Amino acid sequence: MSRLVKKFGGTSLGDMERIKNAAGRVKAARDAGHEVAVAVSAMAGVTDQLIALCDQASVLCDAAEFDTVVSTGEQVSAGLFAIVLRDMGVPARSFTGWQVPIHTSPEHGTAQISGIDATALEERLAAREVPVVAGFQGIGPDRRVTTIGRGGTDLTAVVLADALGAERCDIYTDVAGVYSADPRVVRRARKIDMISYEEMLEMASVDAKVLQRRAVALAMARQVRIQVLSSFGDGPGTLVVGEDEMVEKEKVSGIAFSRDVAQITLLGVKDQPGVVAALLKPLVEEGINIDLIVQNVSNEEGETDLTLAVKSVDFERTKAALERVREEPGYRDIKSGVGIAKVSVIGLGMRGHAGIAQTMFETLAGKGINIKAITTSDIKISVLIASEYAELAVRALHTAYGLDEGAA
Amino acid sequence: MSRLVKKFGGTSLGDMERIKNAAGRVKAARDAGHEVAVAVSAMAGVTDQLIALCDQASVLCDAAEFDTVVSTGEQVSAGLFAIVLRDMGVPARSFTGWQVPIHTSPEHGTAQISGIDATALEERLAAREVPVVAGFQGIGPDRRVTTIGRGGTDLTAVVLADALGAERCDIYTDVAGVYSADPRVVRRARKIDMISYEEMLEMASVDAKVLQRRAVALAMARQVRIQVLSSFGDGPGTLVVGEDEMVEKEKVSGIAFSRDVAQITLLGVKDQPGVVAALLKPLVEEGINIDLIVQNVSNEEGETDLTLAVKSVDFERTKAALERVREEPGYRDIKSGVGIAKVSVIGLGMRGHAGIAQTMFETLAGKGINIKAITTSDIKISVLIASEYAELAVRALHTAYGLDEGAA
Repeated sequence: MSRLVKKFGGTSLGDMERIKNAAGRVKAARDAGHEVAVAVSAMAGVTDQLIALCDQASVLCDAAEFDTVVSTGEQVSAGLFAIVLRDMGVPARSFTGWQVPIHTSPEHGTAQISGIDATALEERLAAREVPVVAGFQGIGPDRRVTTIGRGGTDLTAVVLADALGAERCDIYTDVAGVYSADPRVVRRARKIDMISYEEMLEMASVDAKVLQRRAVALAMARQVRIQVLSSFGDGPGTLVVGEDEMVEKEKVSGIAFSRDVAQITLLGVKDQPGVVAALLKPLVEEGINIDLIVQNVSNEEGETDLTLAVKSVDFERTKAALERVREEPGYRDIKSGVGIAKVSVIGLGMRGHAGIAQTMFETLAGKGINIKAITTSDIKISVLIASEYAELAVRALHTAYGLDEGAA
Repeated sequence: MSRLVKKFGGTSLGDMERIKNAAGRVKAARDAGHEVAVAVSAMAGVTDQLIALCDQASVLCDAAEFDTVVSTGEQVSAGLFAIVLRDMGVPARSFTGWQVPIHTSPEHGTAQISGIDATALEERLAAREVPVVAGFQGIGPDRRVTTIGRGGTDLTAVVLADALGAERCDIYTDVAGVYSADPRVVRRARKIDMISYEEMLEMASVDAKVLQRRAVALAMARQVRIQVLSSFGDGPGTLVVGEDEMVEKEKVSGIAFSRDVAQITLLGVKDQPGVVAALLKPLVEEGINIDLIVQNVSNEEGETDLTLAVKSVDFERTKAALERVREEPGYRDIKSGVGIAKVSVIGLGMRGHAGIAQTMFETLAGKGINIKAITTSDIKISVLIASEYAELAVRALHTAYGLDEGAA
């Protein structure tokens, strides 16, 4: 017997039949002797409807009231899930964020979970009941309902798994697990059986759809084992675990990519301590997320070039912000362009294997794809290329690293 | 400057335009210098949708979880109402039942309000803010969300008005006020300017649509002045106040009726102390609401007849329950029928005016309507008649008592 947290997303709760299917999985686990706690998102589409109502109410909607309205989607799901479980003969009780309680910081819409009192949940589990927790929400210091950002129910689930000392946190979604590449692009992509937090973070930073990035980061920090699996199929999903659990560390476990990247290169930046920080300060102030930073060694005049990648939607704001520092600390010129893609090769086993990078560059060169910038981390190599080559590059790399389904 | 509570029902909040219209009324009152607190129902149709979801989830839906789900309708309204007020430049803050908090008994779906802590609301009012309270809900002793029964937001509003010492509780609805008869039946029905709690209770027991009966009873007990008015038109509505405020006590203020009444007469009941109570005990145990009880003096054999009126839907259950006491304490025979209507003449000024009853009987006789049973209270005379004559009777009585619009 072990203790499990099971999280169901909006698609897994899209209608009553799906809610009953999800509840059936909880019942099966409980019948097998496990203790189960559940975290639920709003039914698919409900959050968007509630957001639309708020938008109709005001173009500048008060954030605290926005949270009051949109958090009801998860409350409804939690109540319905508990009703269905009880109908199946499984004692269950729903909990909103304030009922648990899950304490958060006061920032509405983007609150941070600051603590959780698991006493009431522990009592339910001790009584062989299934607590069903409304995800995405908590209670702030002023007793107002807060929400913790889109995809927040993943985070709620990991917080619960940590607080309850759960053996595993099962994240049910509409895909069978984490894939070696986007199956819509690479037909022979294969489901990864086990992946490390670090690799998952690199994946999640590119494609947040499968698993929220903050949830992975917290799971890594608190050593919470996650399983990503389908709520529609059977069979195991992908285990996301610590590096120490990884029996075999794949040199390359997956290829990720993102489109809609814009590239901005500052030419003639003085190579002095503090200059880069000063150049990037206006972007931080604007809240612009910098996806990638590349800086090469300086030339003989003590100048260097700095390349940034940001989301295309942030392109104009980024350029405007950088204009403010053109004189001080200063750069000579700016070169920029949209229509860029970032392609990344990710693998725990690539550490110290210089050959991995070499394979990447050769593969892209072989397809005639020009690399605009390169950046590497311990477990990831990313390149910027023209967006039109993105799929071709991903497929070629997937094959080159021997990841295709059915390949050795 | 005075303090007001304003309650808006589901029809008054049917879409965003209506919510903005309702909020405009709050702003106008505040601009005129009043302190305003608001109570809101769910948007029209939302509660029914949430109930349908619960019904889909289980035919025997857990009451606590049902409350968790359906109470979200009012939470959404309260949040949206606060957003709209703020958009109009009126500082506002929503409150759910647990946030106020409004304490209730633990009976889910039919909880009784046991107390309210108005401290947080008072603080908002002191800060010139408008607290917007989600109606229909509270928090039980076990920190679960409770609901207080259909139409409960009227009750929430009266509780707030009492706790805040409000000058008046304005109940906005889709009619202009309380009418001397149902305007769909009596075209010349007129809006009543002022009515006593007692009269309103007699009206409300017949037609609960305008104002919830429990809300009137609480208003009477706590001397909370109510105004029923339209959220669509202008002009004053109907004031519901204590008898002492009534300048002129109308002999008859209104004619009410209800169809779908069933009549059951027990023949040959022993006229002894305790017999009637024993006969009605099974009905109380079954939770059957007895609308009317008539018993006449006994005959020479010491026997009497007992007539009951119940709702048609309860007819079969009532007969079955009464079979259980046919032998002990016993009655000789039972006569019953459906298709009955109850018509009532209501008026504070009828006390001691025997002529009022005489007018009623003569009017009905003049139309050839047979009276099956009569019962009177201090301020009401009710008769049972064949249902097909109901409208005719109401119209004739409305004219006979000089209530027609335009009449002296």
